[in-house]
Amino acid sequence: MIDFWFSIGSTYSYLSVMRLAEVEAQTGVHFRWRPFNVRAIMIEMDNIPFAKKPAKAAYMWRDIERRAAMYKMVPKLPTPYPLAELERANRVAVIAAAEGWCEAYARGSYRRWFEQGEPAGSEPNLSASIEEAGQQPRRVLRKADSDAANADLAAATEQAKALGIFGSPSFVVDGELFWGDDRLDDAIRWLKQMESGPPD
Amino acid sequence: MIDFWFSIGSTYSYLSVMRLAEVEAQTGVHFRWRPFNVRAIMIEMDNIPFAKKPAKAAYMWRDIERRAAMYKMVPKLPTPYPLAELERANRVAVIAAAEGWCEAYARGSYRRWFEQGEPAGSEPNLSASIEEAGQQPRRVLRKADSDAANADLAAATEQAKALGIFGSPSFVVDGELFWGDDRLDDAIRWLKQMESGPPD
Repeated sequence: MIDFWFSIGSTYSYLSVMRLAEVEAQTGVHFRWRPFNVRAIMIEMDNIPFAKKPAKAAYMWRDIERRAAMYKMVPKLPTPYPLAELERANRVAVIAAAEGWCEAYARGSYRRWFEQGEPAGSEPNLSASIEEAGQQPRRVLRKADSDAANADLAAATEQAKALGIFGSPSFVVDGELFWGDDRLDDAIRWLKQMESGPPD
Repeated sequence: MIDFWFSIGSTYSYLSVMRLAEVEAQTGVHFRWRPFNVRAIMIEMDNIPFAKKPAKAAYMWRDIERRAAMYKMVPKLPTPYPLAELERANRVAVIAAAEGWCEAYARGSYRRWFEQGEPAGSEPNLSASIEEAGQQPRRVLRKADSDAANADLAAATEQAKALGIFGSPSFVVDGELFWGDDRLDDAIRWLKQMESGPPD
């Protein structure tokens, strides 16, 4: 099993969120979806990769476009960024993970955000993605706007930080950290080696 | 042909510098070595990825260690970082590129820096790497410490910036930019598509 740590709001996480089901089917690897608040960690460590860095931001969109094409995805880029409601999107994701519908919600959120231009975490994306995952928006949003949901997201974020996570997406295989959609193959290789070979 | 833009002083560039000869032999792709001063660009855009970011720095060393193992390289990590003499190392590299011995010099510099712990750009690494490339250190260093060499490195750096380059290593295929050793395969695929298929 691989822990898939991600924040809705991260641009590169689009690639992983949208292809993980297929990777799972092809490799037999099970992924556990672990939402957290990457923005809180990045602000705390003063890691601001794109704002006020136009060359890096331009490259990021072009790189995502090329990588998406490799995976036969069809984003319309650039999409609204950064998200105004990142925290809310991820409070819902933490609830969804606990209740077992995180993947459907995250995929819906990213599809609407990256392919239809509707920011994740805000309406109409938010309620539509909750409904797509088979849930009632009113119930979920009441829960998501509570102090308890806030505390749960903060706790997940502390757990991510304790694992050395500083970006999204991150893959953790038995304590070994792989950062970035482009390290997913490495993470899978690591897991398979761990399962098959003697420890090195 | 792919332009290989790099700065001696970048950690991830170790992976590319050390494997490019083999990649060239396996793929038939020719690489043109284009040294520049990545530090000048990063300072100008306030892009300081590792200093004062211990979680990212720790990950970077571990990630390089794992990627190096994939390529059968044997670095001793962490190695002294950042380099005190980055500019000097790259002034020599610019001269070496003009005179046709850049790859041998860069490989020697990185091998001594990453595998023997001797900082690139400083003695004894500097003169040993120049000699390994078949050159007389006294002649090269006199040239490297001139205003002309300074101007040449600055001009190469301006050219890199104009291409949208903000990090090392970067690969440029007919104006298309790929950043990072982990994008080398994508760059090669891009070149082969360009050469074989109709433009899309």
